[in-house]
Amino acid sequence: MDIATPAGMLAGMFLLIMAIVIGGGVSGVMAFINVPSMLIVVGGTLAATLVRYPLGRVFGLMGIAMKTIFFKLSTPRVEVQRMVEFAKVARKEGLLALENKVADVKDIFLAKSIQLLVDGTDAEGLRSILERDIENVRQRHSIGKGILESMGTVAPAFGMMGTLIGLVLMLRDLEDPSSIGVGMATALITTFYGVLLANLVCLPMGGKLALRSKEETLLKELMLEGIVSIQSGDNPNIVEEKLTIYLSPAQRKRSTSEDSGEK
Amino acid sequence: MDIATPAGMLAGMFLLIMAIVIGGGVSGVMAFINVPSMLIVVGGTLAATLVRYPLGRVFGLMGIAMKTIFFKLSTPRVEVQRMVEFAKVARKEGLLALENKVADVKDIFLAKSIQLLVDGTDAEGLRSILERDIENVRQRHSIGKGILESMGTVAPAFGMMGTLIGLVLMLRDLEDPSSIGVGMATALITTFYGVLLANLVCLPMGGKLALRSKEETLLKELMLEGIVSIQSGDNPNIVEEKLTIYLSPAQRKRSTSEDSGEK
Amino acid sequence: MDIATPAGMLAGMFLLIMAIVIGGGVSGVMAFINVPSMLIVVGGTLAATLVRYPLGRVFGLMGIAMKTIFFKLSTPRVEVQRMVEFAKVARKEGLLALENKVADVKDIFLAKSIQLLVDGTDAEGLRSILERDIENVRQRHSIGKGILESMGTVAPAFGMMGTLIGLVLMLRDLEDPSSIGVGMATALITTFYGVLLANLVCLPMGGKLALRSKEETLLKELMLEGIVSIQSGDNPNIVEEKLTIYLSPAQRKRSTSEDSGEK
Amino acid sequence: MDIATPAGMLAGMFLLIMAIVIGGGVSGVMAFINVPSMLIVVGGTLAATLVRYPLGRVFGLMGIAMKTIFFKLSTPRVEVQRMVEFAKVARKEGLLALENKVADVKDIFLAKSIQLLVDGTDAEGLRSILERDIENVRQRHSIGKGILESMGTVAPAFGMMGTLIGLVLMLRDLEDPSSIGVGMATALITTFYGVLLANLVCLPMGGKLALRSKEETLLKELMLEGIVSIQSGDNPNIVEEKLTIYLSPAQRKRSTSEDSGEK
Amino acid sequence: MDIATPAGMLAGMFLLIMAIVIGGGVSGVMAFINVPSMLIVVGGTLAATLVRYPLGRVFGLMGIAMKTIFFKLSTPRVEVQRMVEFAKVARKEGLLALENKVADVKDIFLAKSIQLLVDGTDAEGLRSILERDIENVRQRHSIGKGILESMGTVAPAFGMMGTLIGLVLMLRDLEDPSSIGVGMATALITTFYGVLLANLVCLPMGGKLALRSKEETLLKELMLEGIVSIQSGDNPNIVEEKLTIYLSPAQRKRSTSEDSGEK
Repeated sequence: MDIATPAGMLAGMFLLIMAIVIGGGVSGVMAFINVPSMLIVVGGTLAATLVRYPLGRVFGLMGIAMKTIFFKLSTPRVEVQRMVEFAKVARKEGLLALENKVADVKDIFLAKSIQLLVDGTDAEGLRSILERDIENVRQRHSIGKGILESMGTVAPAFGMMGTLIGLVLMLRDLEDPSSIGVGMATALITTFYGVLLANLVCLPMGGKLALRSKEETLLKELMLEGIVSIQSGDNPNIVEEKLTIYLSPAQRKRSTSEDSGEK
Repeated sequence: MDIATPAGMLAGMFLLIMAIVIGGGVSGVMAFINVPSMLIVVGGTLAATLVRYPLGRVFGLMGIAMKTIFFKLSTPRVEVQRMVEFAKVARKEGLLALENKVADVKDIFLAKSIQLLVDGTDAEGLRSILERDIENVRQRHSIGKGILESMGTVAPAFGMMGTLIGLVLMLRDLEDPSSIGVGMATALITTFYGVLLANLVCLPMGGKLALRSKEETLLKELMLEGIVSIQSGDNPNIVEEKLTIYLSPAQRKRSTSEDSGEK
Repeated sequence: MDIATPAGMLAGMFLLIMAIVIGGGVSGVMAFINVPSMLIVVGGTLAATLVRYPLGRVFGLMGIAMKTIFFKLSTPRVEVQRMVEFAKVARKEGLLALENKVADVKDIFLAKSIQLLVDGTDAEGLRSILERDIENVRQRHSIGKGILESMGTVAPAFGMMGTLIGLVLMLRDLEDPSSIGVGMATALITTFYGVLLANLVCLPMGGKLALRSKEETLLKELMLEGIVSIQSGDNPNIVEEKLTIYLSPAQRKRSTSEDSGEK
Repeated sequence: MDIATPAGMLAGMFLLIMAIVIGGGVSGVMAFINVPSMLIVVGGTLAATLVRYPLGRVFGLMGIAMKTIFFKLSTPRVEVQRMVEFAKVARKEGLLALENKVADVKDIFLAKSIQLLVDGTDAEGLRSILERDIENVRQRHSIGKGILESMGTVAPAFGMMGTLIGLVLMLRDLEDPSSIGVGMATALITTFYGVLLANLVCLPMGGKLALRSKEETLLKELMLEGIVSIQSGDNPNIVEEKLTIYLSPAQRKRSTSEDSGEK
Repeated sequence: MDIATPAGMLAGMFLLIMAIVIGGGVSGVMAFINVPSMLIVVGGTLAATLVRYPLGRVFGLMGIAMKTIFFKLSTPRVEVQRMVEFAKVARKEGLLALENKVADVKDIFLAKSIQLLVDGTDAEGLRSILERDIENVRQRHSIGKGILESMGTVAPAFGMMGTLIGLVLMLRDLEDPSSIGVGMATALITTFYGVLLANLVCLPMGGKLALRSKEETLLKELMLEGIVSIQSGDNPNIVEEKLTIYLSPAQRKRSTSEDSGEK
């Protein structure tokens, strides 16, 4: 699991709670828990998202988004090593021997690629099927990012609406001055929730999903090129050389030094 | 009918009303009904839209937008099946036999396509007529989206103007302190309306229209390719294969498993 | 004249005045008339526009913008009919016979096109001269739109400056509490003016100018293609067919049904 | 000198001062002069600009920007006439005779072009040297525009910071109610300065620089084409014809009528 | 070290402190030091950045960003001279003689280029390795810029959250009116911090990183072209001529006059 995203959220929440405790004591924290405000901000944001995106997709894509964000990706270097290993197996024992490897592969995309390879799909078919899969993943991620960003835009607006509701109700009845402060405090909490939801959750997660999507599709493209290279009977060294362009110089250098270290 | 859009709007409204009732009782809801405020926000937003878009088009395109947003679309898979079925009929009984199918087809675009096919329009003519139709639908949607988005930008501005009107009128006469609260409350309601109209209605519907437009033109392109393929005498299997690229992998997989299930 | 733009502005103004009258009586309307505020918003917006755009151009282009926005355009269908009619004349009586038509043509661009045709300009020259004219119109519109949009951005800023001026002057002298309300009311009016000018006038008119510019250049391109087609001696049916691509399907259908109605 | 930019700024300042005098008398103007506020807005904006742009460049480019904005450009028509005149001289007396003209030419770019021409630089070298010069001017303008726009974004933020400083200092000491008003007034002035600097100075001048940059590079391109045409020995009529594409139709028409007027 | 960036930040800070001292005396400065507010703004901004960007990268890339921003770059002219000098050495003593120069070269990219040259890498390999390095640097800069800009967007939002926390806590307990002022002052400081962090630090540094990235990649491209030119055995004059396109006209002119001065 990628630790940064949940760690960042928890750290942000912790800092805000700390600041509340320093300013208002532990009892101050209670002042920031307000169920109707949460209903307005979280519920309203979800409602506006449903108006915009189809029902099933919102939940399905949120799931994909979560997995993409929290799931730790493999690295290009590890995958290059794996493709080279597969190429060695294919060289020695033939393409069919790769079928035994499928069970060890957790990555669905890679497992499917090997299966297609073993089934004897030709290079063009392999490439067109897998490229469509990659394009599909990219589009799902892009819609997921769109959902998160539209939630990040709408959340502060619902926060503001909640504050306006609170203010209007409070202003109707100003006879008891002692209640004005509490009324305004409650009203402002909804704005606080909206800004928090947008800036600590929705918008940065949308940004992370975009970054992850790029990394994930790069990995998948690397696998695709590796599988096609193996199919065409390239020897392991050539497979490695072809896939090197997917590594950053830093990754390449480490890879080389380790190789020489092994010798 | 696509349930998500109206459901989302109703859910959002319900949540806001609930929050008002919790905060101010049922009588609090009355405080949020203010006819002049509605006049300013809804009327002013429509007025500014009329300044920007031609009169007839605003209403016509709003109708198209509504239909596009609320009407439930067919799925690519269903349409592929339908095209395959048509291809079988054309194979067995000739192109003219498709004329009997026109009556069953509710989709105007598809009905027109079949009619053109039966009338013996050549491939190039068919393609140019239908592509122009698709382009036209796309443009109408794009203007509809522009109208909804410009309404979403203008609505909060008119909400603010209404609040300024309320504040100015209230500030002119501060002698009776008891009326200040009610005056300010009434003023703030207009901002509330503006933010609500923009964020729960106009902006998400504009976004939905854009999503729908993409799906609808994709479906129409699928039909166009199917009709052209049928016209060129392709056998049903080839028609299906050609149209498969319009299916996402998930749809394709299900389609295959059901096929094998049928056997 | 295109009724929507002035009608929308009047409707928007009427709604706001209505809301003021409902809230504060007819005397309330007087509270919203404040000459210094108007000076700041309208004058300041024009001043900032002069800093940005050359003196002569602002007024010249504003004139063009107004004409483009308020002037009712011909429709593609009418122009296609006209080009077909011209083609018939040219067929029967020769190109020179078109010279008599120039007097009836109010559209300057079309009149110039015909004159060039009659003068015997060759196809390439005709096309290059008229395309440059179209490009020039497009650029003038684009600068006009830029002026309107920059006014729409600057107007609320000057409204805010006016409000700050009012607040600062009021806050200097808080001894007489009864004057505070009036002072603040007056200050807020300038913000009201700025938001109104931007959202009911400048921004929607900028949007309309862009829409109009597209329609007008489309019409001019239709005329250009028609004139070139006539010059090359095409018969009226071919001229009509060539120009049909400028019609939307709806316009084309009506055109066809009317044709058959005439027979 | 181009009168519109300084005239617009002065007019805007005058309007604001007028509005202050109407509202608060001449003594009111004094309330708007606050040295610490100016320090924060002007100084802070410059400081943030230094963080972003290299030291020497900010001042150098500001100078270029000023010159570009305030300096009145020649018009395409005048330059076409000049190139035609040069072509006549070159025709009659040879290219070397143009050397006498260099002294009369104030435009550095044109003087350099003629010098290169007289020095016998070949067409390709001429074009590559001058095009690089044009590109260089364009880039300097683009950075100048970036500086002005980033100042326009930062100025209101420093205005807000100044207001927050004023409010915090005022709120620390609320014992003397009579000082509250003056404290708030002073605080708000900084926001006023920030909005003014951005909307009357920085942003419109950035926009003007962009407009000017386009006009200036167009003029330089016209000169480049003219010089290349003269070098290749074109006769004056052909030079004029080649350069006509740089004139707008309005300019071309006037040019033609004056020509015929001369005959 | 590039003086402008830290100088600008210090100048901005100094101006703000000056303004505080003028308005509230030295004791006023103390009112602006508030640890919980700093925790919320700086900590919250970092937390949100961690949600968006992977843990290791944020710190690694921040380091790269700092180095890029504060490190003074060489100039194109100096590097052209260096490449010419290398070309002379290579001409006289052969490519291998350049190996002695590597020790003097501090720039890692250039040292690597020379090493590759000395090692006998062929032109195509040299170019592909070095271009990938340049692309990699560009991407790291682009992510660094993204981090700084997202911090600049998030900082004011956390400032606002801190202010809301302060206001809510203060409003809960309005019994002691004397504490209201101090409470509000403290609340507003967090907004002040957020706006300051964004506008004096994050956003301008993001802009500077983008400018620097352009300059640095230009220098690297110049070196790459120089090394390739040296490898192909070009004589020093040709190397200089080829690299001149990387100099602005101003740099070129100075370069020429100095050359003639040397003779």
